[in-house]
Amino acid sequence: MGGKSAGVPHPKLARVIAWFGRHGDGAEHRPRGRSREPQRVERVGLDDLTPDPIAVLGKAAYLQLGHFEALSRAASTAPTLEAKGELSAAAGKVLAKHSAIVAELDRRGADSSAAMRGHTADVDHYFELIQGADWYEELASIYFTSGLLDDFFGRIVGNFEGGERISGIISADAGSAAIVDLLAEGIAGDPRLGSRLAVWGRRLVGDTLLIARSVLPHPIDPPKGEARIEPVLTELMAEHTRRMDRLGLTA
Amino acid sequence: MGGKSAGVPHPKLARVIAWFGRHGDGAEHRPRGRSREPQRVERVGLDDLTPDPIAVLGKAAYLQLGHFEALSRAASTAPTLEAKGELSAAAGKVLAKHSAIVAELDRRGADSSAAMRGHTADVDHYFELIQGADWYEELASIYFTSGLLDDFFGRIVGNFEGGERISGIISADAGSAAIVDLLAEGIAGDPRLGSRLAVWGRRLVGDTLLIARSVLPHPIDPPKGEARIEPVLTELMAEHTRRMDRLGLTA
Repeated sequence: MGGKSAGVPHPKLARVIAWFGRHGDGAEHRPRGRSREPQRVERVGLDDLTPDPIAVLGKAAYLQLGHFEALSRAASTAPTLEAKGELSAAAGKVLAKHSAIVAELDRRGADSSAAMRGHTADVDHYFELIQGADWYEELASIYFTSGLLDDFFGRIVGNFEGGERISGIISADAGSAAIVDLLAEGIAGDPRLGSRLAVWGRRLVGDTLLIARSVLPHPIDPPKGEARIEPVLTELMAEHTRRMDRLGLTA
Repeated sequence: MGGKSAGVPHPKLARVIAWFGRHGDGAEHRPRGRSREPQRVERVGLDDLTPDPIAVLGKAAYLQLGHFEALSRAASTAPTLEAKGELSAAAGKVLAKHSAIVAELDRRGADSSAAMRGHTADVDHYFELIQGADWYEELASIYFTSGLLDDFFGRIVGNFEGGERISGIISADAGSAAIVDLLAEGIAGDPRLGSRLAVWGRRLVGDTLLIARSVLPHPIDPPKGEARIEPVLTELMAEHTRRMDRLGLTA
């Protein structure tokens, strides 16, 4: 699993991680170590942090739709017919994930449009923030952010009713192998692209963790919430580092 | 079936139809009515006019990809979340048609990218010609041109090996009911949109018949070819008129 630098986030990311667990409740200044009450800690799980499956699924569905649009756009502007074909196929896979999450909302009797509507403003803004300056940065954004978000949401939904099924949907293949190949090809042909994408890959993490964090309640009661969230964040960062490594980019 | 004005094309369209059957061989000036040789006419079929299934399938596959991109774009810029969802679903259906045609090329041992490559220049140019000035014109372009082209290619492939299967793929649902609803809603809310789309719907026909015609050999030996093509054109125009009628637009 590796994750060579997963435990050493750079300062901005450290702030995001701190905020992830403790934003808005002044917890930074509270004394730590209330774990003297073990039976209370044991009751805490990620499910306790995510009281509304409809809101989580609504956000997950709308995020997949955003990645579908990003992939379709990347397919439209692909430099070769092969890349166009592969990115279109990836777009199809991500659209299928979106549809399957919408079906889960339907299954719960929820109005899927209403469930997504509450998230359009911040998700649209998020996709503006992660929009790359060129085709390769766009591909890198799609690869890194959909990886992070699928890892995150795949874990969050695990405790819902039907969690294993929904987690399977969210973790399903999003055509990433093809995207990695296209990125690797670009990096091989232009060494400066590699350093640019390494910076870009690091920059994406903060905004992505923030949009992920937004489905958890504010504030999370520390230290119970933190105790559950910090190992998840460590895993997410390890997976992100693995994706960076796969492209030979130093995380 | 209707087709109230199918037999009365306006002058520009009449020229396209004439060119469709007779371009490049000066046939306009030849005497008509050689049908005194019935056994020769009987041997003529549309399959005789389409010598290369790979080229036809390559063009059909690349046209579906273009419609997929147009639908994804329309989904990205949709004014409501419901419209975005419906257009994304339609894009998924059209992508599935593209993939199924690519699978047919694979089944024939053809290199599908190579089969499409020969058509990218004229198809890309075609999609520029039919690009609408706004979201509604875009939807109208997708609805009318994919309708016409699916009708055309669905018939052309009918004589290929496995023709019924391929024809089924091409004629499969492309989400048109949702597009019709969105267009009808727009027209109901703005009567001037109706007249604008009526003009636009007529304008699209010429360029669409030309891109369709391009898969047939040049020139087509008259009058054998014409005898087969003219009824097909009449049917295509009747179907187009039916689509215009469905939106209350005078064809």
